[in-house]
Amino acid sequence: MGGDHGPAVCVRGAMIAGQRLEGVRFLLHGDTALIEAELARMPTLRAISEVRHAERAIAMDEKPAQAMRRGKGTSLWNAVAALKEDEAKAVVSAGNTGALMAISKLQLRMAADLERPAIVASWPTARGISAVLDVGANVESDAEQLVEFAIMGAAFHRAVHGSTKPTVGLLNVGSEDQKGHDDVREAHALLRETTLDFDYRGFVEGNDIAKGTVDVVVTDGFTGNIVLKSAEGLARFFTNELKATLTSSLMAKLGALVAIGPLKAMRRRLDPGRVNGGPLLGLNGIVVKSHGSADANGFASAIKVAVDLARSDYSQEIARNVQRVMAAAARGSDPEPQTGVVG
Amino acid sequence: MGGDHGPAVCVRGAMIAGQRLEGVRFLLHGDTALIEAELARMPTLRAISEVRHAERAIAMDEKPAQAMRRGKGTSLWNAVAALKEDEAKAVVSAGNTGALMAISKLQLRMAADLERPAIVASWPTARGISAVLDVGANVESDAEQLVEFAIMGAAFHRAVHGSTKPTVGLLNVGSEDQKGHDDVREAHALLRETTLDFDYRGFVEGNDIAKGTVDVVVTDGFTGNIVLKSAEGLARFFTNELKATLTSSLMAKLGALVAIGPLKAMRRRLDPGRVNGGPLLGLNGIVVKSHGSADANGFASAIKVAVDLARSDYSQEIARNVQRVMAAAARGSDPEPQTGVVG
Repeated sequence: MGGDHGPAVCVRGAMIAGQRLEGVRFLLHGDTALIEAELARMPTLRAISEVRHAERAIAMDEKPAQAMRRGKGTSLWNAVAALKEDEAKAVVSAGNTGALMAISKLQLRMAADLERPAIVASWPTARGISAVLDVGANVESDAEQLVEFAIMGAAFHRAVHGSTKPTVGLLNVGSEDQKGHDDVREAHALLRETTLDFDYRGFVEGNDIAKGTVDVVVTDGFTGNIVLKSAEGLARFFTNELKATLTSSLMAKLGALVAIGPLKAMRRRLDPGRVNGGPLLGLNGIVVKSHGSADANGFASAIKVAVDLARSDYSQEIARNVQRVMAAAARGSDPEPQTGVVG
Repeated sequence: MGGDHGPAVCVRGAMIAGQRLEGVRFLLHGDTALIEAELARMPTLRAISEVRHAERAIAMDEKPAQAMRRGKGTSLWNAVAALKEDEAKAVVSAGNTGALMAISKLQLRMAADLERPAIVASWPTARGISAVLDVGANVESDAEQLVEFAIMGAAFHRAVHGSTKPTVGLLNVGSEDQKGHDDVREAHALLRETTLDFDYRGFVEGNDIAKGTVDVVVTDGFTGNIVLKSAEGLARFFTNELKATLTSSLMAKLGALVAIGPLKAMRRRLDPGRVNGGPLLGLNGIVVKSHGSADANGFASAIKVAVDLARSDYSQEIARNVQRVMAAAARGSDPEPQTGVVG
């Protein structure tokens, strides 16, 4: 248990989540002494928690391969093992992302014949919250993986953001069918010809993300990661410029002073990095990554994402849609014989 | 001559550019009657311009292949032909991007053994203006093309934004050498081991763009196009939210009223879509695309970009660096024999 701030922030996050989410219970993995010291001041959380001691923790800069080799017995490893043993319904971690992904994949394995996990970001838009994936679990994604991301993203959006029939778009450099490279065009064709539990809207472009044109934006992990980090950088740049602008003259300062409340609220709402809790989709089990730098409220948000997923039909929905795509793909590559049977 | 607003905006843009840029002269291609009607009111521009009549124009939605087939005799074709015949030093167009690219490549051909053109965007950052390329000329780019983009981008940044030794970064999902897919890793290795006229700083991440970490951000056309359009979308979203925030209450309105000047100036400065004039780099000749929706001032900016490029050492610099990379690549794939010669 840790992240950048150590266990105190996580324990306080659990306390906040415990107050907000009825019936939730915690297994807290880490250094018992540190965790118990925090819990001593939180009797309500103490009553719904069990502490599991771990001798070691995985460092934030440890390489995934190394984390897998020497991970046994660490708090991260034990948390995922408890999920695998069905002692827990979900894992939330503010630790090392690569290690969390590697150890989760090793212990839990992929669900429903899915090939690769994806990390999904919840992105504030003009119309609400969109899910954008993959934002960094993979560096290359072929057509089938893009289709899997669409399925996982739609199930996620329904489970966490409450859409009844999510709209899904595939990120591309134009909206016409012939635009883009082979992988996006193939994924586009496959999504169009399959009946799924979501509403596939075709290609979307970069500017559609902030517009909220679709609930789920599907892209490869390379593009997704760069787009997410660019947007976080741009949001920071904007707010810094806004601050500089509003202190540039006496009149500007006066204006800022008057409008400070709404301006601060806006800043919190807009940053794509601010909606905390990025689930690792596609695993046999719910694993949610919290920003390493999240505060207690941010960590509580990540816990809420995990609880929403655990209490939803999310896993079954993914399995159902994967089957449909596989059936459609099989029909496409191996068409039924055209000889008629008269009977 | 046209774009979304017809020739009037372009002629007025030329007038503004003519006043700002000493010694510039224009060949105006298009419908003589329309152009002359504008020029009648602008004697200073008239004195430095020659009008070339064209019977036809390429429509904004015409496909590039079609534009190439039936392009002869259009104003766009004639403008590029005049550049090829050395009657002009640069072409500026607010017309159809795909057609401009196809017709330019057909008539001018690629420079200095370059493989593919790239479109470069001038991006406002916390430290000035960075060049980001490719933002849409290609949908896939291999390692060698990424290296070419680095060379073209650096030469462009020096010519237009005045850096003496531009810093260059390769956009990736992390900064460590082993991050990313094969193409970015190969390009990274090639750029590191070659001595070039710019300062290669290695991998940069999405958030480095707005920071202005490097003068030139190199990426493939798929990622670049999506990142640019996402940023434009986010900039629009941000300014809309700011407007909504600053009209959300009486106090907020009052604040906005007081700070309106600096806020408007900030909005103009920040939008990545606002710096007009995207050159098509890599051709034997300078071709600059203006936004179709640019106003006269925007079109004048695009003309300034073209003039800066035409008056710089840009073309020679590209040729010089391409040769160095090719020499380095040849050494890499075909090392010198290890038998020593004793003389």
